[in-house]
Amino acid sequence: MTTTAPRPPAPHRATSHLSAAHLAALLLLAQGCAAGRAASPPTAPPAPRTMDQILAASPATDWRPLDPERTVQLELPSGRVVIELAPAFAPEHAANVRALVRAGYFDGLAVVRVQDGFVTQWGDPVAGQPGARPFGTARQALAPELARPAAGLAFTPLPDGDVYAPEVGFVDGFAAARDGAAGLAWLAHCYGAVGVGRDDAPGSGSGAELYAVIGHAPRQLDRNVTVVGRVVAGLALLSALPRGAAPGGFYDRPEARTPLRTARLAADLPHADRTRLEALRTDSATFTALVEARRNRRDAWYLRPAGKIDLCNVPLPVREVKGGEAATPR
Amino acid sequence: MTTTAPRPPAPHRATSHLSAAHLAALLLLAQGCAAGRAASPPTAPPAPRTMDQILAASPATDWRPLDPERTVQLELPSGRVVIELAPAFAPEHAANVRALVRAGYFDGLAVVRVQDGFVTQWGDPVAGQPGARPFGTARQALAPELARPAAGLAFTPLPDGDVYAPEVGFVDGFAAARDGAAGLAWLAHCYGAVGVGRDDAPGSGSGAELYAVIGHAPRQLDRNVTVVGRVVAGLALLSALPRGAAPGGFYDRPEARTPLRTARLAADLPHADRTRLEALRTDSATFTALVEARRNRRDAWYLRPAGKIDLCNVPLPVREVKGGEAATPR
Repeated sequence: MTTTAPRPPAPHRATSHLSAAHLAALLLLAQGCAAGRAASPPTAPPAPRTMDQILAASPATDWRPLDPERTVQLELPSGRVVIELAPAFAPEHAANVRALVRAGYFDGLAVVRVQDGFVTQWGDPVAGQPGARPFGTARQALAPELARPAAGLAFTPLPDGDVYAPEVGFVDGFAAARDGAAGLAWLAHCYGAVGVGRDDAPGSGSGAELYAVIGHAPRQLDRNVTVVGRVVAGLALLSALPRGAAPGGFYDRPEARTPLRTARLAADLPHADRTRLEALRTDSATFTALVEARRNRRDAWYLRPAGKIDLCNVPLPVREVKGGEAATPR
Repeated sequence: MTTTAPRPPAPHRATSHLSAAHLAALLLLAQGCAAGRAASPPTAPPAPRTMDQILAASPATDWRPLDPERTVQLELPSGRVVIELAPAFAPEHAANVRALVRAGYFDGLAVVRVQDGFVTQWGDPVAGQPGARPFGTARQALAPELARPAAGLAFTPLPDGDVYAPEVGFVDGFAAARDGAAGLAWLAHCYGAVGVGRDDAPGSGSGAELYAVIGHAPRQLDRNVTVVGRVVAGLALLSALPRGAAPGGFYDRPEARTPLRTARLAADLPHADRTRLEALRTDSATFTALVEARRNRRDAWYLRPAGKIDLCNVPLPVREVKGGEAATPR
């Protein structure tokens, strides 16, 4: 049983080159990145150059625990998807998703759509029809939350420009864009972004139908639809699902849909049932170093560092911790 | 059996809004886009606004048949993946892939790696070890083909800039970049791009191990690794495969690998066994109109046309034809 192919694995992306002896057990769940932390600091550590090395050297204070009140655990037959909500950008929708989750709205519903290179979407297959799941205390429709005042946000800008927005960067672990002249900021549709399905009418969404981006960032959606969070763990459980055969990637047969067992707020679960995650602070020195390491890849495989990076190519590391100890990778 | 969800399907991307009565049977295989052509022109056609409408109005001369000599049909248990080679950018590698295919090299090999949000990679699981598949007349290693002179290329530029390259656009149906000052052009790692796996040594690739991009465009790979073509049909058969559990998305168990039944050049197959495809010419008026329609989406769902588009968000339509007649969608 081998873990790497004998032939050139190229291209390398995740950074699994540190020896096991140098790694503490960590699980980095975001965007397929893997990393480690030095179990005991070497006496003469080399200057960090790769993402792995930078993360290995990060102080604990550069990580923040996810808030259980805005963390949703979505259980599929294949495993758990964890979503971090973004109430700073979509307070009404985040609140409504919480209300839906607490009403058990999603339990037993399904993934209804997987369009290749675009989105995986879930909700009530018979919404709006007889037999539709009741909303409980949640609202049926909300005005979209497409942008917010930039004032008051700690915005960590990227230096390399963007095709779609005047400025891009990060706010509290989310990929975001900013228009300084208009004084507005909004979340970007990067890989793993979670948005609120709606009909043509702008105010027709509620959070009862959600989608996750599973392809090249469809940034044309920015400011057209509410982004309410992002997937921080288990994204591959959504991205590797069978594509739907009907237009838009909808399933043409009900039995092709993937069921949702339950959706729960982490705060409502016993501690033992929570996936306890920490996200790298995007306003930290570690993150600044990580961005620079990804702008100019120093992995041995690279011939020509790009010198730049696109917003949605920046990894947003998340790691799992258990009982205050580092978790074993799984 | 419904083909669309009763609730907001949002966000729309593919354009399935024309009524069936207005559609001839066409199959557009690239990047999940769907489109149609007017069966009989309405007496007073509206000005084309959406991609569907633009494609429906396209003259036959704006499409080019794929060259069977540079079309590879890769047969998986789940169906057929079709790859168009790019000898204009990677002549040596395209020739070597052809030689490998004609030697039956890939028959019975496997997908060895699926890394979420990055690449699906296939080749010989025991390459370089006892039992490795022989290369026939193909070469074992080639110097990388990372860029070529821009002179002599019909380059259709995009107007909206790019994070990574001085200029981006299209060459003969491929997403490409150009550096006018250096006089160089190269292919971009967009969704569906097919590249040549290699080890750390630049000249260690051959085409015997290939990968397809299945996530947000990893443009940092541009000019670091040879792009030898792109997937023009069946990309979802590669992107929806189970992710590998080992580092880099390699499978940790041989039985988890997806087998490759055969790879054949279309030119070597009987006509009845070829998937006959036409690609929209990227130097055509139809493509120019399509790009503008995608820069400024006029679909009823959109609130705010982006006014710009990223290279890898531009659809590259491909359709299937049979016997000179439009094929039925499948």
